[in-house]
Amino acid sequence: MSNVAPISRFPVPRLEDLPDDIRARIEAVASRSGFVPNVFLALAHRPDEWRAFVAYHDALMERESGLTAAEKELIVVATSAANDCLYCVVAHGAIARVRSRNPLVSDQVAVDWRKADVAERQRAMLGFAVKLAVEPARVTEDDLAALRYHGFSDEDIWDIGAITALFAMSNRMAHLTAMRPNDEFYLMGRVPKDALPKLQSPA
Amino acid sequence: MSNVAPISRFPVPRLEDLPDDIRARIEAVASRSGFVPNVFLALAHRPDEWRAFVAYHDALMERESGLTAAEKELIVVATSAANDCLYCVVAHGAIARVRSRNPLVSDQVAVDWRKADVAERQRAMLGFAVKLAVEPARVTEDDLAALRYHGFSDEDIWDIGAITALFAMSNRMAHLTAMRPNDEFYLMGRVPKDALPKLQSPA
Amino acid sequence: MSNVAPISRFPVPRLEDLPDDIRARIEAVASRSGFVPNVFLALAHRPDEWRAFVAYHDALMERESGLTAAEKELIVVATSAANDCLYCVVAHGAIARVRSRNPLVSDQVAVDWRKADVAERQRAMLGFAVKLAVEPARVTEDDLAALRYHGFSDEDIWDIGAITALFAMSNRMAHLTAMRPNDEFYLMGRVPKDALPKLQSPA
Amino acid sequence: MSNVAPISRFPVPRLEDLPDDIRARIEAVASRSGFVPNVFLALAHRPDEWRAFVAYHDALMERESGLTAAEKELIVVATSAANDCLYCVVAHGAIARVRSRNPLVSDQVAVDWRKADVAERQRAMLGFAVKLAVEPARVTEDDLAALRYHGFSDEDIWDIGAITALFAMSNRMAHLTAMRPNDEFYLMGRVPKDALPKLQSPA
Amino acid sequence: MSNVAPISRFPVPRLEDLPDDIRARIEAVASRSGFVPNVFLALAHRPDEWRAFVAYHDALMERESGLTAAEKELIVVATSAANDCLYCVVAHGAIARVRSRNPLVSDQVAVDWRKADVAERQRAMLGFAVKLAVEPARVTEDDLAALRYHGFSDEDIWDIGAITALFAMSNRMAHLTAMRPNDEFYLMGRVPKDALPKLQSPA
Amino acid sequence: MSNVAPISRFPVPRLEDLPDDIRARIEAVASRSGFVPNVFLALAHRPDEWRAFVAYHDALMERESGLTAAEKELIVVATSAANDCLYCVVAHGAIARVRSRNPLVSDQVAVDWRKADVAERQRAMLGFAVKLAVEPARVTEDDLAALRYHGFSDEDIWDIGAITALFAMSNRMAHLTAMRPNDEFYLMGRVPKDALPKLQSPA
Repeated sequence: MSNVAPISRFPVPRLEDLPDDIRARIEAVASRSGFVPNVFLALAHRPDEWRAFVAYHDALMERESGLTAAEKELIVVATSAANDCLYCVVAHGAIARVRSRNPLVSDQVAVDWRKADVAERQRAMLGFAVKLAVEPARVTEDDLAALRYHGFSDEDIWDIGAITALFAMSNRMAHLTAMRPNDEFYLMGRVPKDALPKLQSPA
Repeated sequence: MSNVAPISRFPVPRLEDLPDDIRARIEAVASRSGFVPNVFLALAHRPDEWRAFVAYHDALMERESGLTAAEKELIVVATSAANDCLYCVVAHGAIARVRSRNPLVSDQVAVDWRKADVAERQRAMLGFAVKLAVEPARVTEDDLAALRYHGFSDEDIWDIGAITALFAMSNRMAHLTAMRPNDEFYLMGRVPKDALPKLQSPA
Repeated sequence: MSNVAPISRFPVPRLEDLPDDIRARIEAVASRSGFVPNVFLALAHRPDEWRAFVAYHDALMERESGLTAAEKELIVVATSAANDCLYCVVAHGAIARVRSRNPLVSDQVAVDWRKADVAERQRAMLGFAVKLAVEPARVTEDDLAALRYHGFSDEDIWDIGAITALFAMSNRMAHLTAMRPNDEFYLMGRVPKDALPKLQSPA
Repeated sequence: MSNVAPISRFPVPRLEDLPDDIRARIEAVASRSGFVPNVFLALAHRPDEWRAFVAYHDALMERESGLTAAEKELIVVATSAANDCLYCVVAHGAIARVRSRNPLVSDQVAVDWRKADVAERQRAMLGFAVKLAVEPARVTEDDLAALRYHGFSDEDIWDIGAITALFAMSNRMAHLTAMRPNDEFYLMGRVPKDALPKLQSPA
Repeated sequence: MSNVAPISRFPVPRLEDLPDDIRARIEAVASRSGFVPNVFLALAHRPDEWRAFVAYHDALMERESGLTAAEKELIVVATSAANDCLYCVVAHGAIARVRSRNPLVSDQVAVDWRKADVAERQRAMLGFAVKLAVEPARVTEDDLAALRYHGFSDEDIWDIGAITALFAMSNRMAHLTAMRPNDEFYLMGRVPKDALPKLQSPA
Repeated sequence: MSNVAPISRFPVPRLEDLPDDIRARIEAVASRSGFVPNVFLALAHRPDEWRAFVAYHDALMERESGLTAAEKELIVVATSAANDCLYCVVAHGAIARVRSRNPLVSDQVAVDWRKADVAERQRAMLGFAVKLAVEPARVTEDDLAALRYHGFSDEDIWDIGAITALFAMSNRMAHLTAMRPNDEFYLMGRVPKDALPKLQSPA
């Protein structure tokens, strides 16, 4: 078990060769999380597409919303798991653990959202998202009505659906490029943050 | 057969209420094609997402590429048909007819890309795109090798995959909103352009 | 995009070599529609089977029924689309446009019958037909009850089911033979009939 | 376990009320097999469709062919099993036992044609038939080439495909009507014919 | 049709070479049924696994239960048919005929449990079992509630589920080994027991 | 996100109420791992079935084999992930991390075994296991040949298949009972063992 895959099947630019705006954004992320998530490098092979992707991501994921940040990430985890997307499940599973301050729920949602420790309203949200991800034509007005019954507004429903749609794209880019998640993601949000350096020091 | 569906399940902004940059772009499209494609209005419900979507679209669809404009559109038609996406099949089917100057190929690809009047190389391209659209985890290095055998460069392969990914998103937005294609698309590219006004006049 | 496929993978008889009864019927169709639909030639490779097929078709499609002629054709379009059948979607899509005097509904039903401009009763009819076409064992008494609720009689239900069954056969013959739809079908019913010659003249 | 289902969900005509030609044919079958197979009564609810169905059946199943009568019946069994069709699996399983003088092969093919006691050439034939039955659009020129490699002529391939197509229809009529196979079929071909009366006498 | 497959793809021990406890059990079965069911020999390739398998089988199938012995066997037949498992459908179909004293119901359940001559309560049981066999993650609390509505206790539900689970294993062992059912099973339970020797004598 | 699910839908016995042999085994496991894995309690609702299950597990998982202990666990992870089985993915993912001394590979295999950091030989092993888990009837002699090409002996192939079969059962018991994995599993094998108590102390 030593076949370590590369970051991408396609050429991966070096940080210092990237356009200034892209490099600046990547460096900001890196200084916050301590490493450069591979998706930023793998997609930067195409700068214009990178900019659109990041703009779309920010517009949805950083938008004020009836959904919490943790809920948004769980939508990503559930739908990416339905697509067997290694990068997105591992990376967004990590972010969901951090955002939810719950070290278990990402793994639960990744394996079987039906049995995760989430509220019924959240289960309805995840069920809708997975349906739109996997068999989108079957989504009907009744599915939206069910979400409204659970208290979601129409703007919330747009958010659920649009996040699902964005990651339908992202999952396929990850499969196209065989994108590899950074090793750091696997442990993120599982242990108290101040324990991490100790764990990773050469003990 | 008279239940005419609305443009979207969500609120549709009026053109005059949109931000200037969005309205300007929409008016440019309308002046070129003679009508405002509904996708521009339906998605403008969220201006920031609209901008990112259009930027992504332009980055991919208007990029210099080893693929022709018609080939790009046929990728959209084939993968959108695999997702039963009414808006994208009808609208991009129309554009593909125009770009390819072939009035038949869009309908063929929409129903069964395996039997369409396309070159073997194009059939390989469509097969790859539909696989990535429908069962993305099954795409392996062998699938890329098959495309290279047909003469596609790695940049071409990125294009095929990224267009597929973009419309995986777009198809889900269309299903989320129950987006309705404009009536104008159905006839576009089927008859000589100068015959259209005559056909649509109240004869 | 120039790989024009032949009418059938199997030998296609010449009209003048066919038995008299078959040739007479084909000539009657041709004089009405202006061309010989390829299905008549492709299946005439086996005259006895041809006669049975046409007899079955006429018994169902020309029978007095609670279904309109347009509704019958839309059942063919919806179920043939579920089977990705190029010949039947294109040919019966054309006939459905003519019968319904609606240039849009065939394409809508072919892509996503759930979102087509049809009455709720018709949507129930199409949903039943597609279920019987795709997962016939799952059709239960409840599905028939739903149709009765929408006002269909038991004879209507037989018609819906039997048309679906007939085209389950027809779709498979079309896939077996790689049957090619005539170019003429693509435009039929989309424009006023008297405009057609003008459109197709060498302008 | 006593809920004995009726022959059909739809009205079943009495033999004596049927048109002469239909009654004559049914009586001929009954005198040969000792009972009236339910399919003849259930479908006779619609005499014209009955006549076309029987004509189609005879044209294919009684035609001189490169396939043996037993092989034809096994195609029916394999494809009907893929459609979970109770009537066709039980009735044609019985006929296949009789035709093949093999009491085991029908049950084997009905459960898993891949593991049945048939020749490799027959396994290829059944694999093609099941593919055409279940995912017809995926049948390509390569599948026909594989049959030719096993020695099937193009006329044989038409027979395999057309029988599959005919029973795609028949299976759906059986599911539509919830057609019940006669009790007699279950034992037919399993024991020497002269033992049957004894077995069924009130011992 | 003469390619008679062997009992297993893996080495099959001779009865006399087996450990005493295993041989004793097999001989007991053989003396009761008149032959050694192949599963006992095929799995005895691994004695420890054999012992665990038989212990599991006995714990479930011979346990006092709210389910009858025939119902237990029909669960095996329905779920094994969903897995296209030749050995289990043929062998347990035979046992179900014997246990239910009904020569028809096994074949009915094997082809389409929805249309078998069983009570509604039994149909609910089979529907639950097949769902757990085929798409286990979709089994929710609602499915258990439906069984309770039909009068099943929670211990009955465990039995239904555990038998399904046991044969999920058994079916896969049968497919792994290409296990062949004994010829004797095919006729078992179809005719009065005292008629069997006569039928099989060289008449 | 606070809906903590119980261990099982069915009654869970207390350790002290269990038969001596079962309690002894559970206590041995607990003293080794520091907690009682829930599967031991949930299945102990039925002591005889528990004993058979544990015997089966031990016979396969503790057997001398051409597969390493880590490889066996990865088979469990890959096939349980294909069945969306929360308990087995989380618990055996933990064990696989410990056995392989690799903190990443379990999550990789759980999401997409095709892209995990494993040797090609191991990828072939996992591909075979998932095929047997998900579409067992499609496993043919060719699949075994492919494993032999990768150097697996027939005994190894039995191990791969039998472990897959055992967990096909186990996954369904977990879904039947909605079995909840212990919280301890989620972190196991991700950090050095001596760091665990510190992480979990009330800091």
